[in-house]
Amino acid sequence: MIKVGVVGATGYAGEEVIKILVNHKGVKITELSAVIDKEEPFSSIFPAFKGKVDIICKKPNPEEMAKNVDLVFLGLPHRISMEIVPVFLKAKKRVIDLSADYRLPADTYKTWYGAEHKDKANIPIAVYGLPELYSDKVKKAELIANPGCYPTSVILGVAPMLKEKAIDVSSIIADSKSGATGAGRKPDLALSFCEINENLKAYKVNEHQHKPEINKILSDIAGKELDIVFTPHLVPMNRGILSTIYMKLVKGLDTKGAVEIYKNFYKGKPFVRISDEGKLPMIRDIVGSNYCDIGLKVTGNTLIAVSCIDNLKKGAAGQAVQNMNIMCGFDETEGLG
Amino acid sequence: MIKVGVVGATGYAGEEVIKILVNHKGVKITELSAVIDKEEPFSSIFPAFKGKVDIICKKPNPEEMAKNVDLVFLGLPHRISMEIVPVFLKAKKRVIDLSADYRLPADTYKTWYGAEHKDKANIPIAVYGLPELYSDKVKKAELIANPGCYPTSVILGVAPMLKEKAIDVSSIIADSKSGATGAGRKPDLALSFCEINENLKAYKVNEHQHKPEINKILSDIAGKELDIVFTPHLVPMNRGILSTIYMKLVKGLDTKGAVEIYKNFYKGKPFVRISDEGKLPMIRDIVGSNYCDIGLKVTGNTLIAVSCIDNLKKGAAGQAVQNMNIMCGFDETEGLG
Amino acid sequence: MIKVGVVGATGYAGEEVIKILVNHKGVKITELSAVIDKEEPFSSIFPAFKGKVDIICKKPNPEEMAKNVDLVFLGLPHRISMEIVPVFLKAKKRVIDLSADYRLPADTYKTWYGAEHKDKANIPIAVYGLPELYSDKVKKAELIANPGCYPTSVILGVAPMLKEKAIDVSSIIADSKSGATGAGRKPDLALSFCEINENLKAYKVNEHQHKPEINKILSDIAGKELDIVFTPHLVPMNRGILSTIYMKLVKGLDTKGAVEIYKNFYKGKPFVRISDEGKLPMIRDIVGSNYCDIGLKVTGNTLIAVSCIDNLKKGAAGQAVQNMNIMCGFDETEGLG
Amino acid sequence: MIKVGVVGATGYAGEEVIKILVNHKGVKITELSAVIDKEEPFSSIFPAFKGKVDIICKKPNPEEMAKNVDLVFLGLPHRISMEIVPVFLKAKKRVIDLSADYRLPADTYKTWYGAEHKDKANIPIAVYGLPELYSDKVKKAELIANPGCYPTSVILGVAPMLKEKAIDVSSIIADSKSGATGAGRKPDLALSFCEINENLKAYKVNEHQHKPEINKILSDIAGKELDIVFTPHLVPMNRGILSTIYMKLVKGLDTKGAVEIYKNFYKGKPFVRISDEGKLPMIRDIVGSNYCDIGLKVTGNTLIAVSCIDNLKKGAAGQAVQNMNIMCGFDETEGLG
Repeated sequence: MIKVGVVGATGYAGEEVIKILVNHKGVKITELSAVIDKEEPFSSIFPAFKGKVDIICKKPNPEEMAKNVDLVFLGLPHRISMEIVPVFLKAKKRVIDLSADYRLPADTYKTWYGAEHKDKANIPIAVYGLPELYSDKVKKAELIANPGCYPTSVILGVAPMLKEKAIDVSSIIADSKSGATGAGRKPDLALSFCEINENLKAYKVNEHQHKPEINKILSDIAGKELDIVFTPHLVPMNRGILSTIYMKLVKGLDTKGAVEIYKNFYKGKPFVRISDEGKLPMIRDIVGSNYCDIGLKVTGNTLIAVSCIDNLKKGAAGQAVQNMNIMCGFDETEGLG
Repeated sequence: MIKVGVVGATGYAGEEVIKILVNHKGVKITELSAVIDKEEPFSSIFPAFKGKVDIICKKPNPEEMAKNVDLVFLGLPHRISMEIVPVFLKAKKRVIDLSADYRLPADTYKTWYGAEHKDKANIPIAVYGLPELYSDKVKKAELIANPGCYPTSVILGVAPMLKEKAIDVSSIIADSKSGATGAGRKPDLALSFCEINENLKAYKVNEHQHKPEINKILSDIAGKELDIVFTPHLVPMNRGILSTIYMKLVKGLDTKGAVEIYKNFYKGKPFVRISDEGKLPMIRDIVGSNYCDIGLKVTGNTLIAVSCIDNLKKGAAGQAVQNMNIMCGFDETEGLG
Repeated sequence: MIKVGVVGATGYAGEEVIKILVNHKGVKITELSAVIDKEEPFSSIFPAFKGKVDIICKKPNPEEMAKNVDLVFLGLPHRISMEIVPVFLKAKKRVIDLSADYRLPADTYKTWYGAEHKDKANIPIAVYGLPELYSDKVKKAELIANPGCYPTSVILGVAPMLKEKAIDVSSIIADSKSGATGAGRKPDLALSFCEINENLKAYKVNEHQHKPEINKILSDIAGKELDIVFTPHLVPMNRGILSTIYMKLVKGLDTKGAVEIYKNFYKGKPFVRISDEGKLPMIRDIVGSNYCDIGLKVTGNTLIAVSCIDNLKKGAAGQAVQNMNIMCGFDETEGLG
Repeated sequence: MIKVGVVGATGYAGEEVIKILVNHKGVKITELSAVIDKEEPFSSIFPAFKGKVDIICKKPNPEEMAKNVDLVFLGLPHRISMEIVPVFLKAKKRVIDLSADYRLPADTYKTWYGAEHKDKANIPIAVYGLPELYSDKVKKAELIANPGCYPTSVILGVAPMLKEKAIDVSSIIADSKSGATGAGRKPDLALSFCEINENLKAYKVNEHQHKPEINKILSDIAGKELDIVFTPHLVPMNRGILSTIYMKLVKGLDTKGAVEIYKNFYKGKPFVRISDEGKLPMIRDIVGSNYCDIGLKVTGNTLIAVSCIDNLKKGAAGQAVQNMNIMCGFDETEGLG
């Protein structure tokens, strides 16, 4: 049994991590913290956890928390994580950071997140926690930069084609649709029920902070710089991201062939499922699970990939626990079945 | 053509008043104001109004606005209205206040809204703007206290039985369900999409500030003090209130008889529709309209009344315009067809 | 490991039973059947189960299925179950029937379900599977009549007061609100998205087939015949039932006292949680879980109980598995954590 | 006052036509028909229309209806319209057909709709009713082929660039998202609330029957054959289509320049609004109205156009009435304000 703490326990991602860990055989939740008015049992803040998680949710005190955990999940807004990560690393505790703070080089970070990075020293040791691509590095990681939700859905949907060198790397268009939990848990008029319900919008078109993250990883895989077109949309549902990805083929390929390439690429990866030819995944197939379901369709010289994840599971908390499982030698699927 | 202003133009009720007035033959919108960062065309704040309402939405300045309007609608939070109403009345402009500030005696107001009333002098001249009961007073009113959304649905659902002296006045239970616009347009975690969607809750059980308003009007009709049991619920939809009202009959009455009583009581009232025996109304029948649809069912000695309104129309903006129509001699249904 | 089968595997309740059993330590799903066009892997019908439940979903053949199961769940429409139950009982297999077919005496059944009962012989041996009240009988049951969703929420919300003889048994009013899965999985215009979304309605007012079921059990507890007033409503959400229950007190009792009575009544019952004084449960607290959360409020001589369950979990599949756990000597919470 | 009839009055499009005509100054609804069990007042089928549309909704009898109308709207499934259109044309009545039956050449129609066309003679006289492009032809039309919802949003979003010859016509990708009314009003498990709510899916990827319609019109404008990539998605909301369209620029152009081109192209068109540079439209801006709002963004050599319409208004009934207004010499915006 390892002792685990969650910082930012009252955010959607933090709450989801806790929900998963409750049924995890290998861990004990020993510490919870969040920016709250008064310290009280977590189950008093979220009655859903009554009888399951009744330990006190404390105000943030990383130094203290570090004494009572082996590993910590940080479910914090970007800019905040980089102030807390060093504390835990110094105390030789492993950290899984769900924020964006350690996913990018300092300069790119500053450009897209509008702030000088305060912990440049640890950026190089951070491992990008996408196990389907980097499980070896994840095993030994002290600090995991847990991928963003949009990047997870897009990267998993494009990677096999880049490895196969089957597409024009300058042609990638990702049209992504996300549920509202992706925006986080905070008072915000734009996030209120009546503004989102019966509405649909594109936002931050090609200017979303997840774009450089996608570009970086896809460029690494392609072995050359690439720049995608990325349009996120907000959909009136709680959870789920569906990314419809358009790629120009440079090799003759039909749907059957594309399906084969993807199935081979993800062979042995427990959380990626490729739809058979003629079928496409949808949000309901994966919501509440840690799966990424991908469907494919070739039309002319265009490959269309439809990639679906639950933004709070494979797009955040689920992937974070998947990383922990690999780091700690648990079964990769433990707690995520 | 009368000149009309709207204070609190960016709230749900204010926006709805404007939406209605755009198609109203007798009025011209000359002034809009709201608490905003910068003054700009209303259609820049709400692009839906582009080409329809392009006049500037100003920061609040009642004295100035009063010079350019014949009548004003106040779509403000309670406590704020009572500071602005006197300005317009002093300038001899008619006021339709959609807040709760002039619906109750000062002492009751203080008990339920937690504030000393700042304009006690004008409370007595305020007319409770429920036209189906008080149209004569509305005609001559200088100041309308526009009814709350819950009270409108409950009062219209109970009034005929009280007039008929057919129920035990101590037996009234109103179980009301409201859409989310009823809570107003503001940044609030409790109102965020993911907190309301796929959720349902009872709140302020028998402690909602609309209860004294309902008690006051029903007591007036009954000719004796009564106290109802009132449970509001929040439902994941944008608009609509459905009140299921339970009353103990003191007269032998079947559903057919109850329907007759209600149809007679509301004969000639254009916005109340009574369902035929065996039928019940639902939100979709009235959403977007100014109708109050009421269905009835007698079982044993219990009368169940189901009363449906659109909380932003008959429950707020629609009723406000209905009151204006009566005050200004327009057809009662003008703009509300 | 016991061998379990599910008949009606493609209905919402059947699918939910399977979802729960996948993570249950004591059972192996050996047989699935449903009325389908062609026999194929269950995961081909519901891709969500890919890699988890890939066994074939067969066309109904009870005799055959009986050979390969120890216990069977029937997720069927009423009228169908009573034709299949005898087959499994004859084969000495234990049956948990989620339909209404064995919850009522034959004559009451005929009145409310409009059909002569075809298996009168087995009605007397059926145990009403509400473990919080009848766990001793459940232990030895060969046939479980799994309670309806509305009855579960209402009965658990009223039972303690009846046992306490603290209320006027003729005064019970249950105003229930349900999500759309309660209506079952079938092509029906009234159940289509655009008819339910942004809508809300009362239906079958005091004529719902769950009323006699509630009356029967509450009368048993009260020790005298009673007849409640019951109004179901359809709410635009997938899951959850919230019942707001009004009872007239015959004993002086405040909220604090009521909370105590309920907490004592349900002491040791793992799936009923009573909210502390001043708090009320909501759907989000219990959706996806097998909990029934109950909140209480006394006002005057009226007790208001708010009872929340997930209609597919505690209201159907979860309770069915809870019954199986008790019948088979598993931990009562196994698979339902 | 012209006499108007609606065939298929109980479908979503038919109902919407009626809702609009109720407030139209120039028409009188004289005939309504639909495939129904018994003939009764339209307001008995849709209580929302009580007191507004109480005339009888009859069973279909085109010959009879033709005697009592000057113009008829057909809100029918494809394949049915072509059997009824000839009846009205023969009776010299003008027809606005909301189905797909007269939008394509007979051979293309057969390929995509799987049926031999039964009224080939009238296909050539049908005018494609997209007034922003074909108002002159609409004026004199006897038969209007009212455009599909997806085509309206895509064609209006691409047309200016084709006229300007500013894009590679082989590069057009339309990623469209639609609300559920787009699928029509019928009992269908796939359209049930619980299948669509909290779900999101792509469907008929590049195989949707609206694709040839889009290709045909865009090819006409471009003056050369083109073939787009078209991916429709189903979103959990009642109304609205948002199409995100990707085009490769062949001319140097920035967002400012693109906005100018679109504003000029649609100058004087009352129902198309182009967002200023830096702004994008969303569904809430146009839902319930006949507007098509278009926002633009250039990134590298890619132009992204976001085109929003209400699928039942500009995408069906609203556009149909807009066509009628032009055909009959009414103000183009009458009834659509």
